[in-house]
Amino acid sequence: MRRLHRVSEALPRALQHLRPPPELEVPLASALGMYAAERVVSSFKLPPAPKSVVDGYAVRAADVEAASQHSPVPLRLRGELLRPGSRGGLSLGPGEAVKVETGALLPEGADAVVPVEDAVEEGGGVLVLRKVTRLENGSLPGEEYDEGLVIVERGSRVTPVAIAALALEGRGSLRVYNLEARLLNVGDEIVSGTYFRPFTHLFLASWLEQHGVRVVEVSQVGDDEEAVREWVSRGGSYLTVLIGGTSMGGHEVTVRAVEGLNPEFMVHGFAVQPGKTACLAVLGGRPLVALSGLPVAAMSTLELVVRPLLRGLGLRLPEYPRVLARLTRRLTTKAGLLGFARVRVFERNGELLAEPVMVGGSGSLASLLRGNGFVVVPEEVEGFDEGEVVEVHLYGEVLAA
Amino acid sequence: MRRLHRVSEALPRALQHLRPPPELEVPLASALGMYAAERVVSSFKLPPAPKSVVDGYAVRAADVEAASQHSPVPLRLRGELLRPGSRGGLSLGPGEAVKVETGALLPEGADAVVPVEDAVEEGGGVLVLRKVTRLENGSLPGEEYDEGLVIVERGSRVTPVAIAALALEGRGSLRVYNLEARLLNVGDEIVSGTYFRPFTHLFLASWLEQHGVRVVEVSQVGDDEEAVREWVSRGGSYLTVLIGGTSMGGHEVTVRAVEGLNPEFMVHGFAVQPGKTACLAVLGGRPLVALSGLPVAAMSTLELVVRPLLRGLGLRLPEYPRVLARLTRRLTTKAGLLGFARVRVFERNGELLAEPVMVGGSGSLASLLRGNGFVVVPEEVEGFDEGEVVEVHLYGEVLAA
Repeated sequence: MRRLHRVSEALPRALQHLRPPPELEVPLASALGMYAAERVVSSFKLPPAPKSVVDGYAVRAADVEAASQHSPVPLRLRGELLRPGSRGGLSLGPGEAVKVETGALLPEGADAVVPVEDAVEEGGGVLVLRKVTRLENGSLPGEEYDEGLVIVERGSRVTPVAIAALALEGRGSLRVYNLEARLLNVGDEIVSGTYFRPFTHLFLASWLEQHGVRVVEVSQVGDDEEAVREWVSRGGSYLTVLIGGTSMGGHEVTVRAVEGLNPEFMVHGFAVQPGKTACLAVLGGRPLVALSGLPVAAMSTLELVVRPLLRGLGLRLPEYPRVLARLTRRLTTKAGLLGFARVRVFERNGELLAEPVMVGGSGSLASLLRGNGFVVVPEEVEGFDEGEVVEVHLYGEVLAA
Repeated sequence: MRRLHRVSEALPRALQHLRPPPELEVPLASALGMYAAERVVSSFKLPPAPKSVVDGYAVRAADVEAASQHSPVPLRLRGELLRPGSRGGLSLGPGEAVKVETGALLPEGADAVVPVEDAVEEGGGVLVLRKVTRLENGSLPGEEYDEGLVIVERGSRVTPVAIAALALEGRGSLRVYNLEARLLNVGDEIVSGTYFRPFTHLFLASWLEQHGVRVVEVSQVGDDEEAVREWVSRGGSYLTVLIGGTSMGGHEVTVRAVEGLNPEFMVHGFAVQPGKTACLAVLGGRPLVALSGLPVAAMSTLELVVRPLLRGLGLRLPEYPRVLARLTRRLTTKAGLLGFARVRVFERNGELLAEPVMVGGSGSLASLLRGNGFVVVPEEVEGFDEGEVVEVHLYGEVLAA
């Protein structure tokens, strides 16, 4: 068997050959979950003038200095009602008050707000029952929105809060990374239909979609180096994923096909278990990943190679929630290999426990269904003992006992 | 001001009047991120027979009992190559071996696999250099996939692993909840265009989409009770969200409109801060939420009312990652109100710290941009002291210092 490459050594070398993904301007409404290709910083202050933070009456604080329950101060009530978004233009004279809703800008001349519960309307006026100080119940300019706030960083995933702020900036569109992927199932048994219900390509496509990568094509070819090469060359998407045909035994169609495309960079064989047979290449500055058709090996390659690769490109892929949990029994991995160890985390008596779910090897979809998380075991470690506390990446829900 | 309702008291009563969302059969390829409306349990075993977990040679263990480096055992090598998904039919005779790839079913007669590195091909035969025991390097039936595994629970969100298993079950479609929402912006200032760049509806729509709710309509009407009623009555989606017009001062158009629709259930005013003015109603068995147009109040209602409401309906909405962090200064909330307190979590010297970001009140989009998480402060608590460790729900990324 060939030399196995450590992920921590292979990725930095791959990244030297990779170009960042292409960029694309998309309407704001479709930017949610995509990765920003620009840094956007807020450019103005809100409110531009003090704003009321309560429902009440805008006043001049100086007019109500003497107000109390026992000696209410009467003010003339203007007929207007100032509401959030109302245009300015009104100017409040001495001895006047005007009704304001929460969120309304104070009119010129006003510098405080008497809450509705501290005043009583009477005839054409209002009795103020409590003094307010300057800017009391009024927000400062810039409190709601300010200059210089980072709305999105280059590479960050666009969130609902970012969408809100971009809309407030008047942005109708955003520059994002055009993260497209093409997937190819390789194998005569897939094409001929003799393979029993292939599913790993659907797992991969769903994982990529969940992480903001748009899958634009899923195809299949037989064990035909030339056909694989032809399909890869035809594609224009940033990421290419080849499934199956990476075995280190006789059946290396995929790997030979990639070699034949003269990649700028290629490693075949990672010091990772499962997922040893994965292959990572750079073709025309774009990443190509060839991985096992076995589901656990494929997931291991996604989590331990593809995710850090994309993060290394500056795309801030979300991480799973991580929890600390106590092992219910020993978790064994091979020394020298980065371990992708499945566990089932559950709660018992208020404590999180992690039960290793190692049975079945790389092909065990059952282990992914039984489990809800994985532990990444460093190369230098051969596993963890029963009772040790480990950090688990949760891809599923945690249930009670 | 009216009586404020505790969320913990209002939600159970609302749930008594709510019907579950309607159901819908969707193609498997589009089920990712939706909520399953059926429980699916796996129905068969894989492999049906032992399977090779290495590349190597399928043998009868009894034939190679005496094999070692010094006295290799020669076997006749069959011409076939058994691969994953190869159809059965081959029967291995005594003294025979057949080449197998990882994942291939062992042929009848074989009960173990010699790894490729423990054998040497020579002429038409293979020399076995190491003994293997029965089922060594072969997986047991059911190891990869087994009967009785829960693939999706009713109400759980469909994950990539579930998609894989449903495909393996031969499912081309899945019954899911048809979670649709309509959003209405209420306000003359919105319709007239005098409101400066409204954005809260985009925040709400993005939040709902992120949580697997499909927003099918976003409209706007002025401060017109009858128009709000007409719009609400026209709609067929499960969830209705009205934005603005919930103030407890003069401007309660939305709330009055909802009252006029004779809801089976309605509360207006939650003991929550911010977000006091929110309104929750049940109309024809379906939820209607009216919430503030101010972004922090709106987010508070989403997190403290809408999320638990949907979870109460059995929809397992994902939770944000939660971390424990030490407060950099006192975090104050009002006694008797459930507090939605924004914080910025950052890492310093390996410790997670949480800085309260309370400035600016309900309207402060700035506080949502500056912060990356929130602390839910129970009604009985008036806040936490500087140095206390609090649990933070992270809606954004944690950065260093």
